[in-house]
Amino acid sequence: MSQKYAQLLEKLHTINDVEKSIAVLGWDRETYMPIEGNAGRTAQVATLSAIAHELSTSDELGDLLAAAEQEQAGADYDSTPASMLRSVRRTYDEQRRFSSEFVKRSSAITGAAGAAWAKSRQDNDFASYQPHLEAAVSLAQEFAEILGYEDEKYDALLSQHERGLKTADVRRVFATLKSETVPLVMAIGEKLDAVDDRMLKQDFPIEAQRAMCHYAAESVGYDFKRGHLGEVHHPFSTSFGRNDVRITTRFAPEFAVSSIFAVLHEAGHAMYEQGVAEDLDRTPLGRGTSSGIHESQSRLIENQVGRSLGYWQLHFPELTRHFPKQLAGASVEQFHRAINKVQPSLIRVEADELTYNMHIMLRFELEQSLINGELRVADLPEAWRAKMQELLGVAPKTDTEGVLQDVHWSQAAFGYFPTYTLGNLYSAQFVAAAKQQDSSIEADLAKGDSTRLLAWLHKNVHQHGSKFDPAALCERATGSTLTAQPFVDYVREKYGAIYSL
Amino acid sequence: MSQKYAQLLEKLHTINDVEKSIAVLGWDRETYMPIEGNAGRTAQVATLSAIAHELSTSDELGDLLAAAEQEQAGADYDSTPASMLRSVRRTYDEQRRFSSEFVKRSSAITGAAGAAWAKSRQDNDFASYQPHLEAAVSLAQEFAEILGYEDEKYDALLSQHERGLKTADVRRVFATLKSETVPLVMAIGEKLDAVDDRMLKQDFPIEAQRAMCHYAAESVGYDFKRGHLGEVHHPFSTSFGRNDVRITTRFAPEFAVSSIFAVLHEAGHAMYEQGVAEDLDRTPLGRGTSSGIHESQSRLIENQVGRSLGYWQLHFPELTRHFPKQLAGASVEQFHRAINKVQPSLIRVEADELTYNMHIMLRFELEQSLINGELRVADLPEAWRAKMQELLGVAPKTDTEGVLQDVHWSQAAFGYFPTYTLGNLYSAQFVAAAKQQDSSIEADLAKGDSTRLLAWLHKNVHQHGSKFDPAALCERATGSTLTAQPFVDYVREKYGAIYSL
Repeated sequence: MSQKYAQLLEKLHTINDVEKSIAVLGWDRETYMPIEGNAGRTAQVATLSAIAHELSTSDELGDLLAAAEQEQAGADYDSTPASMLRSVRRTYDEQRRFSSEFVKRSSAITGAAGAAWAKSRQDNDFASYQPHLEAAVSLAQEFAEILGYEDEKYDALLSQHERGLKTADVRRVFATLKSETVPLVMAIGEKLDAVDDRMLKQDFPIEAQRAMCHYAAESVGYDFKRGHLGEVHHPFSTSFGRNDVRITTRFAPEFAVSSIFAVLHEAGHAMYEQGVAEDLDRTPLGRGTSSGIHESQSRLIENQVGRSLGYWQLHFPELTRHFPKQLAGASVEQFHRAINKVQPSLIRVEADELTYNMHIMLRFELEQSLINGELRVADLPEAWRAKMQELLGVAPKTDTEGVLQDVHWSQAAFGYFPTYTLGNLYSAQFVAAAKQQDSSIEADLAKGDSTRLLAWLHKNVHQHGSKFDPAALCERATGSTLTAQPFVDYVREKYGAIYSL
Repeated sequence: MSQKYAQLLEKLHTINDVEKSIAVLGWDRETYMPIEGNAGRTAQVATLSAIAHELSTSDELGDLLAAAEQEQAGADYDSTPASMLRSVRRTYDEQRRFSSEFVKRSSAITGAAGAAWAKSRQDNDFASYQPHLEAAVSLAQEFAEILGYEDEKYDALLSQHERGLKTADVRRVFATLKSETVPLVMAIGEKLDAVDDRMLKQDFPIEAQRAMCHYAAESVGYDFKRGHLGEVHHPFSTSFGRNDVRITTRFAPEFAVSSIFAVLHEAGHAMYEQGVAEDLDRTPLGRGTSSGIHESQSRLIENQVGRSLGYWQLHFPELTRHFPKQLAGASVEQFHRAINKVQPSLIRVEADELTYNMHIMLRFELEQSLINGELRVADLPEAWRAKMQELLGVAPKTDTEGVLQDVHWSQAAFGYFPTYTLGNLYSAQFVAAAKQQDSSIEADLAKGDSTRLLAWLHKNVHQHGSKFDPAALCERATGSTLTAQPFVDYVREKYGAIYSL
């Protein structure tokens, strides 16, 4: 390793350590911090964030970066140094474009909008939120202009979460997804009662849930020697480095199934971070490459593995051991049908695997219109209702159940929603490619064993961290750019069987 | 508030935030961090420590400090700005005296000595540890020379933990303590069987211990809205600011009483930190003023309150509710005698309230001799055995049970041990003064109610944080400098009754 690059790495280690310390402060805030500790914690996070920002945008770092680029000019494109320098250069140049005036104004706007959103949602009062959302849209537009773009403004926002992906590409795959799965949803809508999920709606003791969640995380390969399962209100996962990646879930007597699937979901995210190659640890490449690829790993474990019949044929005995009374008389087939019930509904976070994408496509279409100025914020509630009717055949009676349900837009986080569905699509594409490349994977999965699939994911996705942009990673792993077909095939087969279509 | 002082405060807030973030990383390491996370955590702590050190010793801070001192030259000695500037000046000048060469060498020596200590203790092999301890003694001597001192070298070390206190002062009060309590220990030694504590040596279910520990912490006034009880191997408390002060204990079936008293002890420390005045938060004054005063607060709650008959007359019903089988047939008087059994023994951390001080006086005498060069490390094991015989009438058969039992000296932490006994002495002096100043406090304590005592401590000790040096604080609160008499009176009365002396 050459001298300038080594010096740069040392600076990157320092910045990473500060960022990961912020992550620890954040984790502790959600898990164990007492309620009155919030003001002090906010100050600690703000101080470390300012230090990290200063280190990340210093002239000194810029000089060292330029020197390292010169030194490594001949490095192979796929090598770690070349990937590292590309990544650091991109982030450095981007961060330097934003004046501290913009950063401060941005915090002020999103801070006020977040508070206004929470209140308007509670009061079902869109009008009081409207000026704040208008300010957030303007802020996102300004943000896009500062970053720049080739084709359309929304590209700049999307690329913050899914580096290099164009809005036109997403529109194209979403169009296929829509044309292929809306009819499927509508067909299932005719036979909603074919699946009975009442067995899931009982009281499940929390101690037993805790034990089952621990078991479930281990069953898919989450490494507890390098992790911890915490308890929170809103589940998340977080990484402090490849050897300390935590998951969380929430426990309530009525949430047995949701606590288990939250754990599988977060374990999917966490195994991605646990699987990053050692030499990328403590650097900007030592984490998942994009929101969409990250979500593909969580969805894959939660849905493709965790909601499969094979998985439960193996693990149902353990589940009934923990909940003998609740599951008395239930067969594994009945349980498998119950956890895959499709139900068009109003709330995104409660949606099933199939209708979830409809919620996302709706948001994707609306936020493009907002950002390119075709839709006024004032007209948003009505546009929301119309799209819900078109995509899901249901419409909210109140804005609280409609346009006010998500926090994202108040934070000017436009371009994030599509990555949820991109995750679903990538996950199906990865599983299809893995099965094609190694025929034993399909047979293993049918027996509930995901060990070989995990090894494939480790080799083709996890170990690379952020070395490759998502599109490049997808193509390397599957031999093709992103396409909706594998997901369409997967849901057709799965729900065709469950609903006898 | 004037301009330069305000600017200085802002810098102090930043430094404090980084230091408290390090404390959060440390807490998480002891409580929830997975075993493989240690290397990453060590890097994070080292990075934040380097940042804190750089901020604390910068020329910029020095210039601002000098300007603020000039601006506040007329401030009242007792005012917060005057106390703040005295404290910051002292720390700044001290830290600037140590070269980074010394800091690095110091880490290397104590790192190696710590590892050698652990191994030699396990193997009962003092000889292999001896050169490391010699290096640690030399390091402490060098440290003292860099800091400087008026009367004797040990003063410089003691003052790191008990600011401003002279070794001669400690020798004087310890001499009284020794002459008054060694005969008491010897007298009790004649009637050891007078107290039966077999009821404490049973299996106590951990869930019930957990509930009782929570109850105990609340019973003495620990505020859970600003705290959290964690589970660890070696109990400690830690503060991230006055509104987030955590306590810990350890649970094992055979440790019911020790888990409860550990909680009371740590709650005493924590209430000191929770009680610091709001305007001192996020500054160097926003914490306890010395190790001795800190220990006085923990010992006071653990022993003067927690081992009193009044406390258990009020709370014994709750205890028996949690452990009905274990305590069946036991009276509160029997329980009170059992938790106050005196037993001269070899191990400091297992010692009772009375003999504990003998362990400390032994260490205090030996470490003075080591630091001033009168005792060679090679002769330490033998000196240890002789002193144990003199002070406690027992002598260790092995060095593991003797000179190798504590980690402190391997860390070159000389001057720390005496603060444990100083804490016992201060605690008795505080309680005596409180009772004298408010006669209802004695009556309340006899009924197990420590509310008024806590209010007295808050007013006279807690709220001041580090505004005053320990000696000044003690004199303000009790009207007298430190004296052993209140402690001697306390143990004479208590153990005289229990052992019918």
